Amino acid sequence: MDFTSFLTSLGTSCVIFVILMLLFAWLSKKPGNAVVYYPNRILKGLDPFDGGSRTRNPFAWIHEAMTASEQDVISMSGLDTAAYFVFLGTVLGILVMSGIVLLPVLLPVSATDDSVKTAATTSNGTFSDLDKLSMGNITPKSSRLWGFLLATYWVSLVTYYLLWKAYKHVSGLRADALMSPEVKPEQFAILVRDIPGLQGQTRKEQVDLYFRAIYPEKFYRSMVVTDNKVVNKIWEELEGYKKKLARAEAMYAKSKTTGKPEGVKPTNKTGFLGLCGAKVDSIEYYSAKIHELIPKLESEQKVTLREKQQNAALVFFTSRVTAAAAAQSLHAQMVDKWTVTDAPEPRQLIWTNLKIKVFQRILRQYVVYFIVALAILFYMIPIAFISALTTLENLKKLIPFIKPVVNIGALKTVLEAFLPQLALIIFLALLPKFLFFLSKAEGIPSVSHAVRAASGKYFYFSVFNVFIGVTVGGALFASLKKIEKHPNSTVDLLANALPGNATFFLTYVALKFFVGYGLELSRIIPLIIYHLKRKYLCKTEAELKAAWSPGDLGYATRFPGDMLIMTIVLCYSVIAPLILPFGVVYFGLGWLILRNQALKVYVPSYESYGRMWPHMHKRILAALILYQVTMFGYFGTKKFVYAPLLIPLPILSLLFGYVCSKKFYRFFQDTALEVASHELKEIPNMDQVFRSFIPLSLRSEKNDDDQFEDALSQQVSRTGSFV
Amino acid sequence: MDFTSFLTSLGTSCVIFVILMLLFAWLSKKPGNAVVYYPNRILKGLDPFDGGSRTRNPFAWIHEAMTASEQDVISMSGLDTAAYFVFLGTVLGILVMSGIVLLPVLLPVSATDDSVKTAATTSNGTFSDLDKLSMGNITPKSSRLWGFLLATYWVSLVTYYLLWKAYKHVSGLRADALMSPEVKPEQFAILVRDIPGLQGQTRKEQVDLYFRAIYPEKFYRSMVVTDNKVVNKIWEELEGYKKKLARAEAMYAKSKTTGKPEGVKPTNKTGFLGLCGAKVDSIEYYSAKIHELIPKLESEQKVTLREKQQNAALVFFTSRVTAAAAAQSLHAQMVDKWTVTDAPEPRQLIWTNLKIKVFQRILRQYVVYFIVALAILFYMIPIAFISALTTLENLKKLIPFIKPVVNIGALKTVLEAFLPQLALIIFLALLPKFLFFLSKAEGIPSVSHAVRAASGKYFYFSVFNVFIGVTVGGALFASLKKIEKHPNSTVDLLANALPGNATFFLTYVALKFFVGYGLELSRIIPLIIYHLKRKYLCKTEAELKAAWSPGDLGYATRFPGDMLIMTIVLCYSVIAPLILPFGVVYFGLGWLILRNQALKVYVPSYESYGRMWPHMHKRILAALILYQVTMFGYFGTKKFVYAPLLIPLPILSLLFGYVCSKKFYRFFQDTALEVASHELKEIPNMDQVFRSFIPLSLRSEKNDDDQFEDALSQQVSRTGSFV
Repeated sequence: MDFTSFLTSLGTSCVIFVILMLLFAWLSKKPGNAVVYYPNRILKGLDPFDGGSRTRNPFAWIHEAMTASEQDVISMSGLDTAAYFVFLGTVLGILVMSGIVLLPVLLPVSATDDSVKTAATTSNGTFSDLDKLSMGNITPKSSRLWGFLLATYWVSLVTYYLLWKAYKHVSGLRADALMSPEVKPEQFAILVRDIPGLQGQTRKEQVDLYFRAIYPEKFYRSMVVTDNKVVNKIWEELEGYKKKLARAEAMYAKSKTTGKPEGVKPTNKTGFLGLCGAKVDSIEYYSAKIHELIPKLESEQKVTLREKQQNAALVFFTSRVTAAAAAQSLHAQMVDKWTVTDAPEPRQLIWTNLKIKVFQRILRQYVVYFIVALAILFYMIPIAFISALTTLENLKKLIPFIKPVVNIGALKTVLEAFLPQLALIIFLALLPKFLFFLSKAEGIPSVSHAVRAASGKYFYFSVFNVFIGVTVGGALFASLKKIEKHPNSTVDLLANALPGNATFFLTYVALKFFVGYGLELSRIIPLIIYHLKRKYLCKTEAELKAAWSPGDLGYATRFPGDMLIMTIVLCYSVIAPLILPFGVVYFGLGWLILRNQALKVYVPSYESYGRMWPHMHKRILAALILYQVTMFGYFGTKKFVYAPLLIPLPILSLLFGYVCSKKFYRFFQDTALEVASHELKEIPNMDQVFRSFIPLSLRSEKNDDDQFEDALSQQVSRTGSFV
Repeated sequence: MDFTSFLTSLGTSCVIFVILMLLFAWLSKKPGNAVVYYPNRILKGLDPFDGGSRTRNPFAWIHEAMTASEQDVISMSGLDTAAYFVFLGTVLGILVMSGIVLLPVLLPVSATDDSVKTAATTSNGTFSDLDKLSMGNITPKSSRLWGFLLATYWVSLVTYYLLWKAYKHVSGLRADALMSPEVKPEQFAILVRDIPGLQGQTRKEQVDLYFRAIYPEKFYRSMVVTDNKVVNKIWEELEGYKKKLARAEAMYAKSKTTGKPEGVKPTNKTGFLGLCGAKVDSIEYYSAKIHELIPKLESEQKVTLREKQQNAALVFFTSRVTAAAAAQSLHAQMVDKWTVTDAPEPRQLIWTNLKIKVFQRILRQYVVYFIVALAILFYMIPIAFISALTTLENLKKLIPFIKPVVNIGALKTVLEAFLPQLALIIFLALLPKFLFFLSKAEGIPSVSHAVRAASGKYFYFSVFNVFIGVTVGGALFASLKKIEKHPNSTVDLLANALPGNATFFLTYVALKFFVGYGLELSRIIPLIIYHLKRKYLCKTEAELKAAWSPGDLGYATRFPGDMLIMTIVLCYSVIAPLILPFGVVYFGLGWLILRNQALKVYVPSYESYGRMWPHMHKRILAALILYQVTMFGYFGTKKFVYAPLLIPLPILSLLFGYVCSKKFYRFFQDTALEVASHELKEIPNMDQVFRSFIPLSLRSEKNDDDQFEDALSQQVSRTGSFV
């Protein structure tokens, strides 16, 4: 890529960004779009335009995002989001502090080295004016390389310093959240798994007996986990009919106002997907269905609670400290029985995973790791397989009934051209979902944990396949035989391939932030979808609300993408310092725009009290080590005799990681008792705490206790002390 | 070694053993020797000859040792000793069950293979009738090797089965001991280290405030750790004078009865070691000294408690469950502050290690590991250095004043001949002490833990240096260059060197058990020392008691020796099954004789509730893996094409170890709450519990609380509930 085409590409992206920004400024002021641009504020009961963005200048949101405090972010979007901003801020800090030193020092050093003006070190013909500003322009063995060596150290030291500060900061945030005087149900419960077999008593009696013996004063109640598959299905069916009934009623009411005063009764067909079968009156039909399902649900609830109890339970304590200590303590002599963890929030419990036994969990974990490792290493193979399978000839054989459709001339050409690419795109789009599915299959009990696990896997996938793949890709296959003979030449290979790809990655980063964040801010696609739904589909308030429901920030899928950029920028920071401003703009824009989105748009769907942070920390450190190793290799290709001076760096990084994990990590696993012992605002309503964990499908309309007595133990007739 | 000399050596050892046995039978019946042969019974207040060993036949002790139950062993010698017997029993079981199958199957298979009758596979000329019964006699590629392969599997499976059973059993024993209704002070305390810096309050206030906030109901009191160096010195001086006074008074009293009726007042000199200086009346002199030291001790006690408080403390709870949970829970947000562990017994606290901070502990640990690794790998170098240093010429230069002594002709010859060997012997004898010193330097808080750490190091030392050293030793150095080219030939080398050394090890094992256990049982050396001391040195009852004080079983130094035998026997079990009976006799005799010693002689000096077991388990498994790898190599030298069928074995062993540690290990680290929640016999006397942790040198004669108020917090004026 030469300099002109680079500038063209940059310019185009920039223009798109400006257009999207203006579009946002214009669209977000319209009151009809408020639910798209301010859903979080609306759901929290705040005035969407409170900040004055309606009247003042169109860029007021920038000022608002800048001035919003961390506490605002936490109260609007939770601690996990705040931890994500600490991540963005830390990376931004690393890049800014690196840039301040590297740009004014290294660019002149590179540019003034004339010895290799024309003889490009990279032979793939991408040498350009840009490459003159990179380390590739330095004569081998030149003493100018000392500057680059010191720069490598500078970037590492800046990273250590900021990471240390950030870990301490997030740890403090987590402590603040956990010691909050608000009553949070999950802080009074623990999750008990691997309960051993029954001996003559019921599961409920067994659990109660066990925990009451150990905690005679603080034990409140237990809730045995049940197999809710059937009851969930009935409940979902019921909820579906309820929604449909509401829709039919709304249509009927509307028809009264617009058309005939007596109204048109909506009808539907009872067969497959409402496409065939007898035509019936919808209101009557759905009412009858609901009437029929309610007793069915109630009896199934009873059966579930009585007969489908499993080997796991939630145990409630009247004290936060006791619950925190209980979640960390060994309860049974056999370590694989009565295993305990702290309870996740009710909304993020993966109910179906709770029954899986400890050795099965370990086994599942290793199987999943193995599959992911295979997927990372050979991800091209399933794609090729899918591509082969999705050629038209094969599809015709597999699904004969599409034959007539496919044989149309024009369609055939299009399909033949796009099917393989389509398969690749679908595969890549499904990857996060696939990794989440795999992580869930490990037997993890909470959504946030599964999301963290999936996010970590995705990071390795993207770094390995995009960064190393693009950089070394071709070169690696060409010289496979060479590597077999000298395995340690891989580092050389990586280092040799690096400078040639610098401009490619510059463009990649620029495209990512201009177009990506422009779309994010302007929310063009959700806006269009919302308006279409509002006009043609939604009939009831609930449906409308579902149409603009913003979802959560999804930092778990954002984070691997950010880390990929971070890795690329870090690895090129010394080799081609010009990439640093791009990185700074990416993370700066990201910080700004996502802060706006977090404050005004997205609604968090769970809270894990910043447990994502250690993962982020570890992966930034992994990127740093990759950078240090790459630099070592690259200095080697420059034949710099002092290159071994870089060897202490990866060791230092590992040591730094070890010290950090020793000092901070366990607090992100367990709740420290000094934190849990802070006073509560009020005496917790234990019944409410307990009820918040009952799954929706098991909740009774009547709200009485009788039906729960089978699986849920009775309240202790005693007033415990509340801490 | 040919067959005759092997038999001669065996016979000699056997005769020595029989003589020692008879000596024991005769000597142990004499009442005057009871304190040497039955000290444990005497100290426990039991009749030494209760079992009837005085009147009945001289081998009654065998019957008694056989019939003593595990509970007897625990009550007489503690759980740690019982765990050691489980170890001996398990190894014995492995060898017996292996022998039952291997001897009748493999010996005929080897003996009837005539193809290599004269062409010995081992070229070092040790081929003999014995070697005909070993695997070395089998033709390479012979299908007879299938038998040996299956035998390798059999030994492994037997080991897994018995180890699993043993782990479960010891875990049960530990649970029984920990749930015992007796009040054990250490079960009500936790050890807190890494207390952060003070902020305006005293250390005691800080600790009390912190724990009272977290455990408002169960916190009893705290005891801040102090720097006792000075006070200990004064106290020891005082105790020394007290002993000397008692001795002088006893001598004076005795002189009244034997000589003149007015008695001879004993005298002593006040100078260096009592050899020079003015002659004074001992009773008056020591009384004056004691009189002088008591107030000095008291004032130093006050100063220590007030001003020498350190960053560690013992915290006491009124409930066993709370203490057990507290010892496992994270207390502070920063993981390296307020670190907690369960308190060891008062008698085994290493008071001086408590103040060491967490990162320093980790650093010290790695430094120690590094030193030990160096010592294992290069242990010959310091010995050579010492040998060189201890040649006469060097000694004369270093310590000039020994010159006249050394120049005597005969003495010179003897010294020159023995000095290097002497240095080696001293070095090997000092090794366990050196390893214990190193382990203590890691910052470990309890003696039993340091002993375990030292024992583990000694195991690796002995296996590496004796077993691998003797076997491969010479061959390794000769073919160093060959190994450099093919590193994986080490296994071959080991395998090649094995059969030639079989008879050497047979003799070694036989010598070990006949002479070693003979001396152990007969206690000839302690007996002689005791009688000499009684006659010439001891004047008071206390001195006499010290003279026959038996010490403890010292299983920590026995265990590595046993493991060396176990490793040797296991590695040869299939190659030369004839070693199995020798192993069986070693562990059988050991079990029998040590059971007698544990029941009647040794007094345990601490109780760690079987925490040694996981170490033993892990090391048996390590020996098994060494055996499996060796067998794989040895089958390779036999050019057996099915040798790769052995590859699953080490993997299976690692998996087995992993499952065991997941299922059992944590209970050996922490106390399970279900165990701690068992009821106590009586409400614990918390003051007594607390006082048992006060070091001797800080205990006041007056037994009042006033002087402790500085470092030790006041009792909570509240009656907690006791569980």
